[in-house]
Amino acid sequence: MQVAELFGMLDFSAEKLSKIGVFSTERMLCDLYCFEAGQDQKAHVHADADKVYAVLEGGGMFRVGQEEKRLLAGQAVLAPAGVEHAVSNPGRERMICLVFMSPPPAK
Amino acid sequence: MQVAELFGMLDFSAEKLSKIGVFSTERMLCDLYCFEAGQDQKAHVHADADKVYAVLEGGGMFRVGQEEKRLLAGQAVLAPAGVEHAVSNPGRERMICLVFMSPPPAK
Repeated sequence: MQVAELFGMLDFSAEKLSKIGVFSTERMLCDLYCFEAGQDQKAHVHADADKVYAVLEGGGMFRVGQEEKRLLAGQAVLAPAGVEHAVSNPGRERMICLVFMSPPPAK
Repeated sequence: MQVAELFGMLDFSAEKLSKIGVFSTERMLCDLYCFEAGQDQKAHVHADADKVYAVLEGGGMFRVGQEEKRLLAGQAVLAPAGVEHAVSNPGRERMICLVFMSPPPAK
């Protein structure tokens, strides 16, 4: 039985956004994204995968397509396949997101 | 831009577990499951879909295959395709789970 203690898996890096694998199957990926203050995930597109970011702690700016919104803990956003998206944490606090991608990226 | 305010979408039912759609695409489903104290989700199997339950608030008993564990807020569990799973909230508090299924159930 695969159980994850999410807040026990956190791992921030001074270098860049830290991505921590929670669950991985042939159908989906579940990661924790740990953003230190000032870190970001550059704009990118997944041609054939949908992605959800759920903010667990802190907050940041999320851009999907041409729209950008500030999200806080308890909010989630969908980045549909083929739509460019970017995340940044311009605040002074860390941000933790639970991220799901379906299907997972090709290995 | 599809943004969800998770804690503003909660909707408990005295009748049974309440499932609230958060995001739905052809590749995945993201729901909120709202369990009143004493409510459960009976044992079931998704033959071809993987499912993740992330507990956001409260706690409950999760069974995947033959194993059962009590999970609390901040913990997540994987119910892989083909493996029977069941959830119950035997406690006195409500339980809220963020649930992801990939791919989504056939309509």
